[in-house]
Amino acid sequence: MHPVSLDSFTNKYKALVEKRLSEAVGSLETPENLAKAMLYSLEAGGKRIRPLLVFAVIDAFGKNPQNGVDAAAAIEMVHTYSLIHDDLPSMDDDDLRRGKPTNHKVFGEATAILAGDALLTLSFNLLAEIPEESASAHVKLALIKGLSAAAGAHGMVGGQAADMEGEKKKLTLEQLEYIHINKTGKLLEYSILAGAEIAGATAEQKEILSKFAYHIGLAFQIRDDILDLEGSEEEIGKPVGSDTANEKSTYPALLGLAGAKEALDYHLRSAKESLDKSGLEVGLLGQITDLIGLRNH
Amino acid sequence: MHPVSLDSFTNKYKALVEKRLSEAVGSLETPENLAKAMLYSLEAGGKRIRPLLVFAVIDAFGKNPQNGVDAAAAIEMVHTYSLIHDDLPSMDDDDLRRGKPTNHKVFGEATAILAGDALLTLSFNLLAEIPEESASAHVKLALIKGLSAAAGAHGMVGGQAADMEGEKKKLTLEQLEYIHINKTGKLLEYSILAGAEIAGATAEQKEILSKFAYHIGLAFQIRDDILDLEGSEEEIGKPVGSDTANEKSTYPALLGLAGAKEALDYHLRSAKESLDKSGLEVGLLGQITDLIGLRNH
Repeated sequence: MHPVSLDSFTNKYKALVEKRLSEAVGSLETPENLAKAMLYSLEAGGKRIRPLLVFAVIDAFGKNPQNGVDAAAAIEMVHTYSLIHDDLPSMDDDDLRRGKPTNHKVFGEATAILAGDALLTLSFNLLAEIPEESASAHVKLALIKGLSAAAGAHGMVGGQAADMEGEKKKLTLEQLEYIHINKTGKLLEYSILAGAEIAGATAEQKEILSKFAYHIGLAFQIRDDILDLEGSEEEIGKPVGSDTANEKSTYPALLGLAGAKEALDYHLRSAKESLDKSGLEVGLLGQITDLIGLRNH
Repeated sequence: MHPVSLDSFTNKYKALVEKRLSEAVGSLETPENLAKAMLYSLEAGGKRIRPLLVFAVIDAFGKNPQNGVDAAAAIEMVHTYSLIHDDLPSMDDDDLRRGKPTNHKVFGEATAILAGDALLTLSFNLLAEIPEESASAHVKLALIKGLSAAAGAHGMVGGQAADMEGEKKKLTLEQLEYIHINKTGKLLEYSILAGAEIAGATAEQKEILSKFAYHIGLAFQIRDDILDLEGSEEEIGKPVGSDTANEKSTYPALLGLAGAKEALDYHLRSAKESLDKSGLEVGLLGQITDLIGLRNH
């Protein structure tokens, strides 16, 4: 048994990845304003759920989570760049993110676009430069292939494009799931598979973890949609009800609030069933699953 | 001896890289509009000078240039994404590129931003997926490190950020060279070093080729500035004199037209001297150097 509390694990590894993020940008020779813009969004806080998944998966294999710090930082960079670009006036046009002015509100649109571009580019540098003792050349290439697939046109960017096209249209549940699976699900799944890759998982273990990832990815999004209806602006850091105001297709809009909550329960339950089948030390992953289901921001 | 004409070499390998670019985007499962936007700019033509440098360097080592097709395509994707983002209204706000409407004029700003993001992401996928017979895992990782360094915050993106900050300011020659070395020079240099990496160059050969790259990079930019004064709109595909209208610091503005032409000659001569020292079959590289010095678009 391996009774680590999620709180102490989170504190330790959140600090580790945040240090790595600041160091990676701090060591760049680059115009000061660009570095500031990159750090502004990286240091805006957030749950660091993707890095935590990397670390917790490695831990579930009984390996040292520290081996995942570069991959965790790379994923958080990609996530952060996607928020900066999504918030731009020509995209979602958001003024607030996590209770603070969005990147382009502080640094201007041009610098925000470039800060996003630079974070995406830097993420691949981090993966390619992982020290040999943490990942072999073979593992590093697998991590790079995986990130470029999860983050690109048939992953996160494709999901965002479909989301933009779908705005103000009434979507079917299938179209809505396509958007979420790509826009947020693939990078969450990648976080889990990156941890598995670093820990030396078998193909069978990766497949089980992939299913786990699918279910927590959708649970995460459904919870997001419910929060937009039920949360408080103070807790979620942006105006409540913006989906309804923007006539956005959401789970509650398609399934009703009760139906959305049922779907959330289904995916949380299925995620836990996958964990049970894995034969790994899944205590932390189970707690993260609960966190996703219950989070209020 | 190895008397290939640059024309027949160019025709052959331009076709090869253009086919690879179309295939790579064509095989993505992604929203149709996003794929169209990516292809629109990839297929807008252009000299493909960076891919040609990759192929010509491999050829100079007596190796098969075809081994460079994925690296060449990856570099052209990065170059293309940078043009799409640089043309955006919040950046250079250009309506025309190579005589055609810019990406955001056709597809809108949001899709243009996403198409750029997707091309950058895809470029790393191409490098990570190079077949083993063309590049070992070690070479692939070196290519990925090099691209992420050349294209990111202490390379191309940093140069663009410095360029935006320097707009409408009077720059020193040193500041102007910082911008050009980063904004255009580093990706040109990377094209040459990627070819060298694939061909199995020694550290010493890479150093000589780096110097060659430095000089043709600056020659390229000085020629660009001169063309903005002396070229015709029909030939360069965008309005002539836009630098002067935008009060942009350029080589002719800092050195006078005659001084700029002298600097161009100096860098072309120095580039050729590096080639002479390399001991390689540099016929094609010499012809490309002439082309950069004489090009009228």
